[in-house]
Amino acid sequence: YSAVTTQASPCSINGFPLVRNISELPQDSYGRGGLSHITVAGSLLHGLKEVEVWLQTFSPGSFTPIHRHSCEEVFVVMKGSGTLYLAESSHAKYPGKPQEYLIFANSTFHIPVNEVHQVWNTNEHEDLQVLVIISRPPVKVFTYEDWLMPHTAAKLKFPYFWDEQCVQTPQKDEL
Amino acid sequence: YSAVTTQASPCSINGFPLVRNISELPQDSYGRGGLSHITVAGSLLHGLKEVEVWLQTFSPGSFTPIHRHSCEEVFVVMKGSGTLYLAESSHAKYPGKPQEYLIFANSTFHIPVNEVHQVWNTNEHEDLQVLVIISRPPVKVFTYEDWLMPHTAAKLKFPYFWDEQCVQTPQKDEL
Ligand SMILES: [Zn+2]
Ligand SMILES: [Zn+2]
Repeated sequence: YSAVTTQASPCSINGFPLVRNISELPQDSYGRGGLSHITVAGSLLHGLKEVEVWLQTFSPGSFTPIHRHSCEEVFVVMKGSGTLYLAESSHAKYPGKPQEYLIFANSTFHIPVNEVHQVWNTNEHEDLQVLVIISRPPVKVFTYEDWLMPHTAAKLKFPYFWDEQCVQTPQKDEL
Repeated sequence: YSAVTTQASPCSINGFPLVRNISELPQDSYGRGGLSHITVAGSLLHGLKEVEVWLQTFSPGSFTPIHRHSCEEVFVVMKGSGTLYLAESSHAKYPGKPQEYLIFANSTFHIPVNEVHQVWNTNEHEDLQVLVIISRPPVKVFTYEDWLMPHTAAKLKFPYFWDEQCVQTPQKDEL
């Protein structure tokens, strides 16, 4: 096994060692300010079909989009603290004002299917590091610009940021 | 929220706070020597349907049974080191001699569906702590007494150790 092989084929499910050192895996912001994302075990990268695991670090003041998805999602907070905003599902046409929950190192929570949520590093002094587990990969996310945006106006973001470079596209050089 | 509520209803999906302190969750060996198991996010405990997350600590020399399951399983090693034994699936009638892989802090690996495996804390000096993610909870495990036991003789252990006290049984006092 060589780390070079892993770097050279970021979208391959072949050539990965069975046991991988997380600190040697590709890490990137994927264009999102303050984010560091690592796909620890992935659908597109490693061939998983039912679960996917990410390690994400949010610098102070950074956050996820306001979003929902129909998969299950579990968070385990490794370091730091922050705030979970969660709009409990209702029959309203938009999420509405979310509940706020303090999240902290060694805490865990899960997001009920289709509930609109956002995770925010509201701690000015420390990174927030979370391990994230989702079902039904690759993730299909609907994003909201604000909490009053109608559910029907939320935009599907697929493939999601870290899956973009790995989704199969037709091989144009074979035409 | 009070920790007492959590302790008093170990099998309820009600009454749990959304954000839970992992160090306040029930922790037990469930009769297995050297094991400490915490269900961080569970099917029977917390109502998850597609994934389940455990935090397990193996004291030096302790290990899982030799086993297989048809769900996906991802490990993230939090502390310590040890050995993964994995018999790659073949058309043989029994698992046969497994491959050995060193596992170490900050490493990750996943077990291919139905491959027979065992995790062992082979480090005499340190606990091995792993975060375990499975799909399709609650887990249905087939256990082997040794690597030469025929697949057809492996025994279904269901409910698994930590699920035993929470599987629904008829309420006899209502007869
Ligand atoms: Zn989410
Ligand atoms: Zn297993």
